Amino acid sequence: MTERRDLYPSRVSTEPHFLPRVDPVVYSNWSEEAPLTREQYEAYERDGFLFLEGLLSQSEVQDLLQESARLRSGDAELDPETVFAEMESGDIRSIFRVHAQSPVMKALVADPRLAGLAEFLLGDQVYIHQSRLNYKPGFRGKEFYWHSDFETWHVEDGMPRMRALSMSVLLTDNHEYNGPLMLMPGSHKTFVTTIGETPADHYKKSLRRQEIGVPDDDSLTRLFEESAIVTPKGRAGSVIIFDCNTMHGSASNITPLPRSNAFFVFNALSNRLEAPFGKVDPRPEFVAARADTTPITSLPKQLAAAE
Amino acid sequence: MTERRDLYPSRVSTEPHFLPRVDPVVYSNWSEEAPLTREQYEAYERDGFLFLEGLLSQSEVQDLLQESARLRSGDAELDPETVFAEMESGDIRSIFRVHAQSPVMKALVADPRLAGLAEFLLGDQVYIHQSRLNYKPGFRGKEFYWHSDFETWHVEDGMPRMRALSMSVLLTDNHEYNGPLMLMPGSHKTFVTTIGETPADHYKKSLRRQEIGVPDDDSLTRLFEESAIVTPKGRAGSVIIFDCNTMHGSASNITPLPRSNAFFVFNALSNRLEAPFGKVDPRPEFVAARADTTPITSLPKQLAAAE
Repeated sequence: MTERRDLYPSRVSTEPHFLPRVDPVVYSNWSEEAPLTREQYEAYERDGFLFLEGLLSQSEVQDLLQESARLRSGDAELDPETVFAEMESGDIRSIFRVHAQSPVMKALVADPRLAGLAEFLLGDQVYIHQSRLNYKPGFRGKEFYWHSDFETWHVEDGMPRMRALSMSVLLTDNHEYNGPLMLMPGSHKTFVTTIGETPADHYKKSLRRQEIGVPDDDSLTRLFEESAIVTPKGRAGSVIIFDCNTMHGSASNITPLPRSNAFFVFNALSNRLEAPFGKVDPRPEFVAARADTTPITSLPKQLAAAE
Repeated sequence: MTERRDLYPSRVSTEPHFLPRVDPVVYSNWSEEAPLTREQYEAYERDGFLFLEGLLSQSEVQDLLQESARLRSGDAELDPETVFAEMESGDIRSIFRVHAQSPVMKALVADPRLAGLAEFLLGDQVYIHQSRLNYKPGFRGKEFYWHSDFETWHVEDGMPRMRALSMSVLLTDNHEYNGPLMLMPGSHKTFVTTIGETPADHYKKSLRRQEIGVPDDDSLTRLFEESAIVTPKGRAGSVIIFDCNTMHGSASNITPLPRSNAFFVFNALSNRLEAPFGKVDPRPEFVAARADTTPITSLPKQLAAAE
């Protein structure tokens, strides 16, 4: 048995490296039938993210907010393992595997505007690698440090290739001052390896605060100098789509305005998890789906041959 | 001996209160000779702050940056009591009484564009109540929670009336994403009392992290609903002037870009410190000037009679 080749080795060296991305960003060719404009298509390929302002209607947002309040109220029957609270305040910050615990969220995920777009961009059937409802309270909302999701998903979950993307459905308005998502456009084309090895049970801490698996200062400076920082701002119902390797983070939120979103990671069916590429045990199912990879919608025929 | 009347009692009750400001915001009448336009004059009175973009030239900024680097290098002879470092990293975050320890900063304070403007707005001769050089490093720059400076200066320092203002001279560009100063326009016209009493030696902690003397959540929400949040953005050399009672704060800074400014508090000579209004010992001279209230420039004649 030959050793598995690792195209994106990380946390194995004491020095960081900039490795070129060897995977496509978009896996379908653009045509008039594509679920996004040519400009959007090209922007996503170039920048590694796309901001779809007002994708959902205000009445859809109201339904989602109502469901979000129900889920966070304590009345909903939730797997306790999937509920994460902030250390200091005890406020619920995230509910994982939310698409499997809420019919409303399940319907949202399967919406053609979300799942259909993910299928097109990834050129494959898709399933949910991770889903969660995020609630960043006002006044004491904590920052989330810079990271590439793929770095974690590859090392800790065994996601083999860059063929996944995230959708953040804004449930509150994103202002410049309430800790919005910050992205570095173009950063998705470089794999920035991080330093060191992964300690056991890292996921328990990393969901609260990133410490391992984040880039060092010099790498972030270099990446920023080659790129920029963009903070999509817009009303609830807008959706931010970003590639699995786009460098992102968010600052703290001391304003009275909470920030909330429903967050879904779509992975290509052909890109299902293997054994982790780092020397760690796989993370639990609610953080990284391994057993349940049921496609959430069937792939329309015109996309099947595009790759 | 009658007991001193306190127009702005704070930290004395278990419930917060919104008290109307009983002092003017601007203490001079506007005329063609005023050191600011009528629009600026009215905006400062209404909003409690003013953003003067590009007030200093780029060569002046270079000189200030050079002096800032020297002061933070460890080579400069500084009173150790005036140097504050961040808890986690050990990086120097603030140097107090910087106008008295640096000839360059002393000249900046006395510049007619700063001191002259302060004299006009406060309608009096002015002295430096507090000065400091702030350096908020990239990556791990901490947030600074909402507060009114006057609340602290009144309770802990014994500043009797609202007749002081701050000038933040930007030494780095202010972007929306690197933890810029956030202000609530109009908040200066309300004195928001804070809850509880002041523990002894509070200043040692409060310079690092605000905990006491900050408004409660409900008060901040109400203030925000009656106001807004504004984050002046602009290049180094710009100056933010804000009233002593304007509610302000800043989020964390995880970007690679440090944020640095020279910060000066001008107080009217007629508004010199008395005994603290809270039951605390006065803070040290480098935080709140009590002994050294030498006017930094003489008051031009045309302003003397304006009040």
